[in-house]
Amino acid sequence: MDAEKCLIKISKKLDGPIKKYISDEEPVNLIEAARQYPYAGGKRMRPAMVLAAAGAVGGDTSKAMPLAVAIEYIHNFTLVHDDFMDGDEQRRGMKTIHIAYDVPTAILAGDALFAKAFQIIADLDVPDVNMRRILKYVTQAVWDLARGQEMDVNNEGKIVSEDVYLETIRLKTSVLFAAAAAGGALAGGADEKTVKALHGYAMALGLGFQIFDDYLGIAGDSAKTGKSVGNDIRKGKCTVMVTHAFKHIRDPEVLGEFKGILGNTDATEEEVRRARSIMEDAGSIAYGRQLAHEKITEAVSKLDVLAPSEYKEFMTALAEYAIDRSV
Amino acid sequence: MDAEKCLIKISKKLDGPIKKYISDEEPVNLIEAARQYPYAGGKRMRPAMVLAAAGAVGGDTSKAMPLAVAIEYIHNFTLVHDDFMDGDEQRRGMKTIHIAYDVPTAILAGDALFAKAFQIIADLDVPDVNMRRILKYVTQAVWDLARGQEMDVNNEGKIVSEDVYLETIRLKTSVLFAAAAAGGALAGGADEKTVKALHGYAMALGLGFQIFDDYLGIAGDSAKTGKSVGNDIRKGKCTVMVTHAFKHIRDPEVLGEFKGILGNTDATEEEVRRARSIMEDAGSIAYGRQLAHEKITEAVSKLDVLAPSEYKEFMTALAEYAIDRSV
Repeated sequence: MDAEKCLIKISKKLDGPIKKYISDEEPVNLIEAARQYPYAGGKRMRPAMVLAAAGAVGGDTSKAMPLAVAIEYIHNFTLVHDDFMDGDEQRRGMKTIHIAYDVPTAILAGDALFAKAFQIIADLDVPDVNMRRILKYVTQAVWDLARGQEMDVNNEGKIVSEDVYLETIRLKTSVLFAAAAAGGALAGGADEKTVKALHGYAMALGLGFQIFDDYLGIAGDSAKTGKSVGNDIRKGKCTVMVTHAFKHIRDPEVLGEFKGILGNTDATEEEVRRARSIMEDAGSIAYGRQLAHEKITEAVSKLDVLAPSEYKEFMTALAEYAIDRSV
Repeated sequence: MDAEKCLIKISKKLDGPIKKYISDEEPVNLIEAARQYPYAGGKRMRPAMVLAAAGAVGGDTSKAMPLAVAIEYIHNFTLVHDDFMDGDEQRRGMKTIHIAYDVPTAILAGDALFAKAFQIIADLDVPDVNMRRILKYVTQAVWDLARGQEMDVNNEGKIVSEDVYLETIRLKTSVLFAAAAAGGALAGGADEKTVKALHGYAMALGLGFQIFDDYLGIAGDSAKTGKSVGNDIRKGKCTVMVTHAFKHIRDPEVLGEFKGILGNTDATEEEVRRARSIMEDAGSIAYGRQLAHEKITEAVSKLDVLAPSEYKEFMTALAEYAIDRSV
C-alpha cells in the first residue's frame, strides 16, 4: 500500500467535513483567520490516524470524522501560535496569521480553533463514557503540547541531552498523534487493551517521524525537502545526531571545528559540508537514521493486536512512510 | 447578606483547590507562569458563581469545586492572553506574564491553563451525561470569549452602535459567567429549566456588571476605583453612555466639542470634566446607570425558580453588589 497516495485520498475526504464546523459569524476577520490553516490542507496525518484507528478496530469511520476534524483543528491551533512565537512568515504557501492579519488575531484564531475542537468533541456521536475517555486523551495531549513547545523555546541555541530532546519531541509531536489514534479507537468502540496498543503505536510513530525529519534536515536532498540542508546546522538545532556527535567525536581539534560551525548563522556552504562530514565520520547521521528505524519497528509491532484490514495495512504503511520519504 | 464579604470567604475556600491541579512538572518556567494569576487571587466571582449555583439547586458544592477551579483557570487564560494583546504590564500587583517571563511563555501559559481546565472537566465527579452538558456550555463560552476579544480589538478607537457594544460585552464577560452558573447547576444535578434560568441570570448579571463598570469609569470616585476617571474619555472608550451621548447631544457645537475631547489622549483635566458634564447634561450617565440596573433586575427575576437558601441569597446579593459598589 502506498501510504502517501492513501494520505492524499483521505485528505480529500476531509476537505468537506473540515469546512463544516466554523460557520459564518462575527467578527469576520477572526473567522477567516481561524479557517486559513485547516482549509489550506497540509499532510493531515493526524486526522488520517483518527479515521484509520476507528476503522482498524472495526468501527464506523463516519462517526470518527468529527473527531478527525477536531484533532486537525488542535494541530492547526498550535501551528498558528507556534508560527508567531517562532517568527515564521510563511506556511502552506501563504502568509502566516500574525503576518496576514495581526498578532492579536493570530492569538485569538488559535484560541478559537482550540475551543472549536472541544465543542466538536462535546458533540461526538459516541456513548457519553467514551466521549469522556476521548476528552481525557485529547486534553492531556494539549497540556503536553504547551509543555513541549515551551521546552523547545527553552532549548533554543543549547545542546541538551538526548533524553531532554526526545522528551521535547514526544511532547511536541507524539502526544497528539497518540491522542488521535487512541481517540479514533475509542470512537470506533475498541476495548482498553486495543486503545492502549494504538496509543503506543502512534507515540512511537511520532518519535520516528520527527527523528527522521531531523535526519532529512541533514542528509536529505534539499531540492526535494525544500529546506536548505545547512539550515539546521547554521541554527545549531540540537537533534539526536548532534548530541551523538558531541559524544563520539574523539579528536578535540575536530570537535572544536564542529562547535565552531554549529550554530554559526554565517557558516559558508563549505563549512556546512564539513560539519556534515564530521557527523558522518562520527557515525551520528547513521545513528539518527537507525534510531528512527527502531521507533518505527516498535510502532508497527504494536499493531499486532489488530485483525487484518485495509486500515491496519494503511497504519503499517504510514509508519513505514515516516522513514521512507524524501520530503 | 454582604456579597463582598461572602465573596472573600468563598475566595479563601478556593485557595487550596486552586493550587491542587497544576503539579510540578517540566518546564518549570511554564508551570510557574501558568500558576501566577490563579494563585494571586482576584475577585473570583466566576468560581463563586459555580459553587453558589450548585448549592442553590440543592447539590453537593464539593463536587462542583473542581469545575469552579476550571472556570477560574479559563478566566485566567483569557487574562494572560488579553494582557499581552492590550499591552498591560501590571495585574494583581505583579508584572503580567509577557513582561515577567516573555511573550512565548505568556501565550503557552494561557494555552496550558486552557488545557488544564478541560482536563479538570474531563475528570469531574458527575454522571457522564452531565459532564458532556457542562462541556458544551464551557466550550461555547470559550469560543465566544475569543470572538468577544477580537470584536473589542476591532472596536478600538471607533464609536460602534449600542447593539455592537452590548454584543461585545456579552461575549467578553457574560458568557463565562453564564457557563459558570449553568455548569454549577448541572454539577449540582439541576433540571434543564433551572439550568436555563441560572444561565439567564448570569448572562444578565454579566451585562449589568460590565455596564456598571463603565459607569464607574466615568462617574466613579477615582480614589476608590484606582482608575483615573479621565482614562476612558481620553482613550475614547465606546460605552453605552458614549453612544447615548452621540444620539442625544442636540447642539452641534457641543457635539463638536465633545468629539474633540473624546479619544484625545492629551485632553486636560478640565476638558475631561467638560466632556463628563456634557454627557451628564445629555442624560447619558444616568442612562448607563439605569441600563445596568435594568439588567440586574432581569438577572434577579430569573432566580424565582430557586427555593430559598443561603446560596440563593448570595446570588441575589451578588447581582445587587454588581451595581452597588465603588470598586
